[in-house]
Amino acid sequence: ELFVLTYGALVAQLCKDYEKDEDVNTCLDRMGYGIGVRLIDDFLARSAVKKCRSYSETADMIAQVAFKMYLGVTPSVSCSSAAGNEFSLILDKNPLVDFVEELPAERASLCYCNVLCGVIRGALEMVHLAAEVTFLQDRLKGDAVTEIGITFLRKAED
Amino acid sequence: ELFVLTYGALVAQLCKDYEKDEDVNTCLDRMGYGIGVRLIDDFLARSAVKKCRSYSETADMIAQVAFKMYLGVTPSVSCSSAAGNEFSLILDKNPLVDFVEELPAERASLCYCNVLCGVIRGALEMVHLAAEVTFLQDRLKGDAVTEIGITFLRKAED
Repeated sequence: ELFVLTYGALVAQLCKDYEKDEDVNTCLDRMGYGIGVRLIDDFLARSAVKKCRSYSETADMIAQVAFKMYLGVTPSVSCSSAAGNEFSLILDKNPLVDFVEELPAERASLCYCNVLCGVIRGALEMVHLAAEVTFLQDRLKGDAVTEIGITFLRKAED
Repeated sequence: ELFVLTYGALVAQLCKDYEKDEDVNTCLDRMGYGIGVRLIDDFLARSAVKKCRSYSETADMIAQVAFKMYLGVTPSVSCSSAAGNEFSLILDKNPLVDFVEELPAERASLCYCNVLCGVIRGALEMVHLAAEVTFLQDRLKGDAVTEIGITFLRKAED
């Protein structure tokens, strides 16, 4: 909870700094990237996982090991493209928003948890997997679930 | 570690926002206060502790239960005044600075972990204990240990 509240303070500070939601989102993503780049070592050391042999394995690893380890929740994973390079992590519960009731009306475009996208992107890049990571659905915005989309940018056979 | 890195991103952002270390310290303390005010409910619910009957018990509770719960470390506690209202929490290891090598020269007055002082102050205030909380020593500044001073502002018999 200390983490969740500290993250809330960070988002609040950025909202003070930047008028546009888009700029806050970009900043959170960029911060997340920096965090992911450093977090990957900790993850590899603590999880002692083996190298993933497919995008599907990688997505499962993020959901079942990394999310569990750092956020205490396990999203479900679905593959959303025939090419096998697009995945969705679906969170029924998002601990990062535990203390957030709803976004204020003037912050309707804020991706409150955008840091997570950056973290995933940064961490993946450090294991040589370029990816785009974005929120596709967000319970804070009235969606039924929170969904993070991961698109691996190279072909699956690479 | 995700928390530690996120906290680092918060401090970095504040350093970008405020030129003076003093302003960053104040801002961290104020943010911490807001966090402590909210965290106390979580603490009381999770710890199921009974009401403390003395300042000494309160200081031990902060060190042995709260620090353990939220930061995974247990500072040692010493009473530093004959009046029995001043205590020091001494940390051999401070997990919040795990990724910080040393403060940059131009940030020599930064109290990197000042949020902790605010958290303690805010949480204590919610249980009707006014206190001043400050860093007395900081390993980041070359001290041998990290020491947080807590001064309860009312007389011990109140």
